[in-house]
Amino acid sequence: MSGVAHIGHVELLTPRLEDSLRFFHLVLGMEVEATEGGSVFLRGWGDYQRYSLKLTESAQAGLGHMALRARSPEALERRVAAIEAQGRGEGWIDGDLGHGPAYRFTDPDGHAMELYFETEKYDPPEALRPSLKNQPQRYLGRGAAVKRLDHVNLLARDVLANRRFAEELLGFRLYERVQLDDGSEAGAWLSLTIAAHELIYVADAHGMQRRLHHLAFWVDTREEVLRAADLFLDHGIHIEAAPSKHAIAQGFFLYGFEPGGNRIEVTTGGYFVYDPDPDPTVWSEAERKKGQAWGVKTVESFHTYGTPSPEPPPIG
Amino acid sequence: MSGVAHIGHVELLTPRLEDSLRFFHLVLGMEVEATEGGSVFLRGWGDYQRYSLKLTESAQAGLGHMALRARSPEALERRVAAIEAQGRGEGWIDGDLGHGPAYRFTDPDGHAMELYFETEKYDPPEALRPSLKNQPQRYLGRGAAVKRLDHVNLLARDVLANRRFAEELLGFRLYERVQLDDGSEAGAWLSLTIAAHELIYVADAHGMQRRLHHLAFWVDTREEVLRAADLFLDHGIHIEAAPSKHAIAQGFFLYGFEPGGNRIEVTTGGYFVYDPDPDPTVWSEAERKKGQAWGVKTVESFHTYGTPSPEPPPIG
Amino acid sequence: MSGVAHIGHVELLTPRLEDSLRFFHLVLGMEVEATEGGSVFLRGWGDYQRYSLKLTESAQAGLGHMALRARSPEALERRVAAIEAQGRGEGWIDGDLGHGPAYRFTDPDGHAMELYFETEKYDPPEALRPSLKNQPQRYLGRGAAVKRLDHVNLLARDVLANRRFAEELLGFRLYERVQLDDGSEAGAWLSLTIAAHELIYVADAHGMQRRLHHLAFWVDTREEVLRAADLFLDHGIHIEAAPSKHAIAQGFFLYGFEPGGNRIEVTTGGYFVYDPDPDPTVWSEAERKKGQAWGVKTVESFHTYGTPSPEPPPIG
Amino acid sequence: MSGVAHIGHVELLTPRLEDSLRFFHLVLGMEVEATEGGSVFLRGWGDYQRYSLKLTESAQAGLGHMALRARSPEALERRVAAIEAQGRGEGWIDGDLGHGPAYRFTDPDGHAMELYFETEKYDPPEALRPSLKNQPQRYLGRGAAVKRLDHVNLLARDVLANRRFAEELLGFRLYERVQLDDGSEAGAWLSLTIAAHELIYVADAHGMQRRLHHLAFWVDTREEVLRAADLFLDHGIHIEAAPSKHAIAQGFFLYGFEPGGNRIEVTTGGYFVYDPDPDPTVWSEAERKKGQAWGVKTVESFHTYGTPSPEPPPIG
Repeated sequence: MSGVAHIGHVELLTPRLEDSLRFFHLVLGMEVEATEGGSVFLRGWGDYQRYSLKLTESAQAGLGHMALRARSPEALERRVAAIEAQGRGEGWIDGDLGHGPAYRFTDPDGHAMELYFETEKYDPPEALRPSLKNQPQRYLGRGAAVKRLDHVNLLARDVLANRRFAEELLGFRLYERVQLDDGSEAGAWLSLTIAAHELIYVADAHGMQRRLHHLAFWVDTREEVLRAADLFLDHGIHIEAAPSKHAIAQGFFLYGFEPGGNRIEVTTGGYFVYDPDPDPTVWSEAERKKGQAWGVKTVESFHTYGTPSPEPPPIG
Repeated sequence: MSGVAHIGHVELLTPRLEDSLRFFHLVLGMEVEATEGGSVFLRGWGDYQRYSLKLTESAQAGLGHMALRARSPEALERRVAAIEAQGRGEGWIDGDLGHGPAYRFTDPDGHAMELYFETEKYDPPEALRPSLKNQPQRYLGRGAAVKRLDHVNLLARDVLANRRFAEELLGFRLYERVQLDDGSEAGAWLSLTIAAHELIYVADAHGMQRRLHHLAFWVDTREEVLRAADLFLDHGIHIEAAPSKHAIAQGFFLYGFEPGGNRIEVTTGGYFVYDPDPDPTVWSEAERKKGQAWGVKTVESFHTYGTPSPEPPPIG
Repeated sequence: MSGVAHIGHVELLTPRLEDSLRFFHLVLGMEVEATEGGSVFLRGWGDYQRYSLKLTESAQAGLGHMALRARSPEALERRVAAIEAQGRGEGWIDGDLGHGPAYRFTDPDGHAMELYFETEKYDPPEALRPSLKNQPQRYLGRGAAVKRLDHVNLLARDVLANRRFAEELLGFRLYERVQLDDGSEAGAWLSLTIAAHELIYVADAHGMQRRLHHLAFWVDTREEVLRAADLFLDHGIHIEAAPSKHAIAQGFFLYGFEPGGNRIEVTTGGYFVYDPDPDPTVWSEAERKKGQAWGVKTVESFHTYGTPSPEPPPIG
Repeated sequence: MSGVAHIGHVELLTPRLEDSLRFFHLVLGMEVEATEGGSVFLRGWGDYQRYSLKLTESAQAGLGHMALRARSPEALERRVAAIEAQGRGEGWIDGDLGHGPAYRFTDPDGHAMELYFETEKYDPPEALRPSLKNQPQRYLGRGAAVKRLDHVNLLARDVLANRRFAEELLGFRLYERVQLDDGSEAGAWLSLTIAAHELIYVADAHGMQRRLHHLAFWVDTREEVLRAADLFLDHGIHIEAAPSKHAIAQGFFLYGFEPGGNRIEVTTGGYFVYDPDPDPTVWSEAERKKGQAWGVKTVESFHTYGTPSPEPPPIG
């Protein structure tokens, strides 16, 4: 199986660091684990590592980098060798807060990625020590109280090329994809585990590069997604897509924009893939046009907006 | 129909005001609406009046008083005349924070009660102004985020006498009761509306007077009750009875003790009584012994502990 | 308070009795209590009377009649006298399956209504006897397993006239209304109890008379509404509006069309009105245009389609 | 990673085939996929193979066998070689309904197990064809409507020996375990994936061999577990443990006995283990005595009863 275990963390860029921080802390309910070098490191109450989100001020919103954790030191070496052989490597860095040496590379679309193995497991301070010892952190329930980073959705000019790179170099498995009438691939849902998706590539409607569609954070129940919608409403967070169920991957979703302009999802549900040799589900252009599982039409901005963005987020 | 509309608020006594306040604010998620005369006035986000809980420091835990709101000025006068005629009246007071003149009286067990009509509807400050205009306050989701006071459970030496007083003088309707093999009444579930209960009388196992069994606060969903259990756990609030479903009244419950020693319930569910002439459900001693709806045995302390209490709360 | 207790049952007309029956039995999960005179009488598991829905074959879909239960024989007489005095009465009928003498009348829009008091409380057959004695019927969980009829939404040419009739003659209380820029009333949400709505009048976009907007059936949780959407989907029932939360009345909804063409809602949630003298919430034209609570735009057919209908239901 | 993908199905023995079948079909809501050779093959709506439960009449209740699916033909060969080398192998069988050749072996306690790779993916008949193409079967919602087999809990005389066998020969990972004061292992929670458990070994209090503690079936939400409790209640299925949250593995549970006497769980929740090198959580004897997550004491029969059983199930 794959030598890569999961997406360990994501660095998110925001032109409004303070406002974005307030969103992730108060509305999503994440904890600030550390502040260093102008970045703020945040965690969900279920993250086993110190953080899953690195928030960095930047002129433009978007993805800083996405970091994947390898399954072992040996797996790390093997993956790095394979990536280097493809000419996509950029070399090692010493590591960052909370993790050891990391190898930098880019996917075919140019998104910055890192691969690492050594990591610091989360050791909560007294005030965040949990009652149940199989839980990394106390559950405080602030805001939407997201448990952990769940998945990352990247825009790409060439979905197929990026999806294949993720399959072949990183060991992701393809569970679902959208194939347009012209034969091109408009979206691909990939996973390293039985979870229905951990990484998604979707075609960039503007033909731009290196853009982010959204980051998704996990809650355990659909009721928490509905509750998050009430919190978005009363905290003045624009809801792009109200809670409902996706047809593709069957996740239950809520989409909104954090103050920096990045699209954020609160998600749960979906299915598990225990089958070791599943046939990917292929959706046609006509099928995708039917909208979400219960017939909800997908809002137009969902097909076009990403960060960095040539226009402001569709919040009016 | 009854001239009394609902239980407007309850004054709860606590020997540990600061700790109790922290519980109601942080764990139950209520807002502090005012502090006056050594009491703190708290509200749920769905309370239409300024507050539903008055927290007052006292040597012993227990009920300060329970205040009922009449349906109209005329109804108030009629109820007062009827109570006076029964010799249970104690006279008018000028009112208290947030409400007008109130008539003080006691139920046969001696619990202090008040009846009032004039009240101040809640006018939220800017920071608590809701997005939806049919909602009194912004939803912040802090802690269990209880919506409002739901019901009051009082211990009494003579359940039948108190239940009849509530029916005849205050207009409560009896929906369920427990009748022991010796013919005595061990509990009575009463309501002023279609809600399955607003006031409960249960026999005091110690034969004491004027004691409180518990106050119950409402949340809209069972998921929020389950979530409240996680919050109790991680905030060090002792859970007396984990979330489950009552047989009587079918409410979904979670019971714990606030730091002052009073039993507090987080509740939802139950049924509505649209029938204008329902036959009360009568439970026998044997039926009550079967425990709750799904067979959970009722914890012993639930049958014996009340406030004020001769012994400490069963939290060990 | 009002002499009318609640909406006891509704007669629904359908041009496809067998298909409609299959929908209410299999998809909504109601029980067939009786079949008589070409009509089928159905009940939810929480209905205390024998039935809440009378399904009758007819050339066109729509409302047969709506029957209200009075609070007492005396209240019935008083209401009838008042209705007669208004010239809206049509006289007594002997009763129907499960209830005694009923007085027939029409609201100003011409919808057929009945008022009765004597009723048969439900006595379940052995196979439907519940485990909990405070529950009318066994819970089988078939389909959406609706608990009871919740509310009725009627289209009317003159909302204000019908709303006032409901307030003055039937004792409904107005909790919310929509007022257009031209001063006219576009919708009124009325209730006989603390429930946020039991009867709704909405302006008929076609200027037709006596039409039905929808019948709503209650489930206890939002999760059951989400589950009902999955059932609608896999039973081929067209979903007009996927589960979400209304701004007005804050009910959680799912709308679809039963095979006869009538719009059916599965609902839960909303708020309770304990306040005996609430100010109705007034929504402006601009506010209503904002859509539902979480920003979901109201589907166009929701503003125009009713039964009987000049065009087929919008199911394509 | 492990060459074994997941537990493919379980053969359950029952002395009352017809009654057990009624339970799995009506109460748990499984579909009968086939009947062959005196056995009935059942499936949840989310099972990707033809079935996950084979129900076989037998003089005594208990486990027939547990079948594991390998990740590939090569992985199957490698696992078989390793098991043979340990002397636990019993040889190949031609296969069974729905799957190809299988290798039979026993765990150290003697439970019958099979390993196979070739399988028939489920191809629904027209009446069970789903609306969403990424779902194996239509969702009908009958009874508890379990989605799939989730995990298996086996009693063993020597937990440590069996746990190590599962780790070393089958590739399971250990996520949690209970260590008694005398150093012995009382329970071990094992998984092949990120799911918190798929196979559990618990010490057999009677020192018997080859016994089953329970089979667990998955639903997607806690609300469905609560709903299942209502269904158990009204279908006369004895509830051994009402819905609550486990401390170990944090699963949300409901336990009851199917008519054949086997313990059955309806489950959801728990956590995911994305960490590729997690430290197993170790619970002490004192910690286990605290009961479940919210303080619910574990019912005594849960520690002693298994099938086959020397005494009848604790159902009254």
